[in-house]
Amino acid sequence: MTKEKELVFGHKNPDTDAVVAAISYSYLQNKLGFNTEAVALGEPNEETKYVFDKFDAKYPRVISAANGEVKSVMLVDHNEKQQSLDDIDDLTVTHVVDHHRIANFETANPLFYRAQPVGCTSTILWEMYAEEDVEVPSELAGLMASAIISDTLLLKSPTTTDEDKAALKSLAETAGIDYESYGLDMLKAGTNLDSKSTKELIDMDAKSFDMNGNSVRIAQVNTVDIADTLKRESEFTADIKAENEKEGYNLFILLITNILTSDTKGLVLGDENAISTFEKSLNTKVEDNKASLPGVVSRKKQVVPPLNENF
Amino acid sequence: MTKEKELVFGHKNPDTDAVVAAISYSYLQNKLGFNTEAVALGEPNEETKYVFDKFDAKYPRVISAANGEVKSVMLVDHNEKQQSLDDIDDLTVTHVVDHHRIANFETANPLFYRAQPVGCTSTILWEMYAEEDVEVPSELAGLMASAIISDTLLLKSPTTTDEDKAALKSLAETAGIDYESYGLDMLKAGTNLDSKSTKELIDMDAKSFDMNGNSVRIAQVNTVDIADTLKRESEFTADIKAENEKEGYNLFILLITNILTSDTKGLVLGDENAISTFEKSLNTKVEDNKASLPGVVSRKKQVVPPLNENF
Repeated sequence: MTKEKELVFGHKNPDTDAVVAAISYSYLQNKLGFNTEAVALGEPNEETKYVFDKFDAKYPRVISAANGEVKSVMLVDHNEKQQSLDDIDDLTVTHVVDHHRIANFETANPLFYRAQPVGCTSTILWEMYAEEDVEVPSELAGLMASAIISDTLLLKSPTTTDEDKAALKSLAETAGIDYESYGLDMLKAGTNLDSKSTKELIDMDAKSFDMNGNSVRIAQVNTVDIADTLKRESEFTADIKAENEKEGYNLFILLITNILTSDTKGLVLGDENAISTFEKSLNTKVEDNKASLPGVVSRKKQVVPPLNENF
Repeated sequence: MTKEKELVFGHKNPDTDAVVAAISYSYLQNKLGFNTEAVALGEPNEETKYVFDKFDAKYPRVISAANGEVKSVMLVDHNEKQQSLDDIDDLTVTHVVDHHRIANFETANPLFYRAQPVGCTSTILWEMYAEEDVEVPSELAGLMASAIISDTLLLKSPTTTDEDKAALKSLAETAGIDYESYGLDMLKAGTNLDSKSTKELIDMDAKSFDMNGNSVRIAQVNTVDIADTLKRESEFTADIKAENEKEGYNLFILLITNILTSDTKGLVLGDENAISTFEKSLNTKVEDNKASLPGVVSRKKQVVPPLNENF
């Protein structure tokens, strides 16, 4: 008997891990007898394009809603409903593999849920392949290694764990790549911001959070030269203001992160109260809409938790 | 460096699995380098007493709040906050191992979460011992086998999976018990209701659910003779009415389950609307506060999901 088809996908505004984890989990689940298709909730960013070109891999079909195509789905690299399919409330979530906090997530039935506080979903999947004794094909290993490089900024992010290091080493070996030199090229490819409008850049890797009734939007762009990125500051500011108005965000934070020096400058706009909560949470001052965040590279580990606590 | 101490516990009104899973997960985590103590959120029921006597095991310390004793905790066999420690909101949940739906659960930080749609938390733990290559001691194996017998009604509940069967067989072998005959004795010991007041019986294995703003309380007692249990119907009814008044429940369902025939009679009291939602959900009629639920034995799989959908 063939199982009923399910879709597997990562979050909206997909980064490399969101797309790769979907492909990787779909492959594993199909080996275990499920009937799944990996899809993506958005087009690839510059880095992800570079990765898929490098390993000659096919980017999944892009959808924003299931529209009755399936009844059940599997989530990777996210669980919060505002980061998922538009019609997620009409679907049954049967499986989740994730490395984020759990919030805005509720099911009517028991399900399979696997979360670990590691740097990358692909690291958890690498462990699951081993547990199920399924071999990672070489091309997929290259994608998964790239996802780990992306999420951990080449193992330099404070989210990095020993498991991420072990997974990257093993996957790079399977893929036959030198992950240090490849990783730097890949991260640099992701910082090619010139081809994007500022509106595209504030949308590209942005996530929404509900924090005690406050609607908080946190976007992040990686760069190798923050001053260069800030040449377009007035355009960024105008776009963020328009976005706050349109979407009703109480706070919008654009994290501009230098991946070589592991520092971040924040562009921060929103309600007065929300901005002072931001200042208190991150122990910084917002001057002229900008805040210095030395040593901050991880939205998930260094920005969301203190905000969440103070809101 | 010694890790900071964490408490490990199952849900309030603990059943055998809630207590045994806490002991079993605490043992495993300590083997893996954590510093944990298993506690229970309530006194043992008749069945659990029988189990702990049989394997000469020590029942854990009973608490209802952490009261600053620890900062972090690990949950087993539950995640919904109303089923947990009274001060769970002041604590950080670092680990969860569970086999229920996820609801009313939110964290500020990434965590370890392992849920599988199997019949018993102890089944998941049995798999985790194998994955971590940690041996289950014989006494603990007896407790874990008892938890599986309890949750799956000796593998007869519709929640039972192949994993539960494999786990029970393996654990019974380690413990050196004939699980069929021991299981029947154990379940019968749990149905010794005569020593309990009706108030104790409606509290014993009761869980609260928030269903779209409706406060729903579902209690379950196991018996080998429903008619005999219903000799005290008027006392049950009076106690449930008093409870609804006191706690503001919109609906109280007492499931009286015959573990030999796998049938249930429900005593159902509450708001008129809630009762008709119950009737619609379970496809039954409530007459004189009573509803027949043939083939129903699992609150989690056969009662909560349809209620949740219809509320």
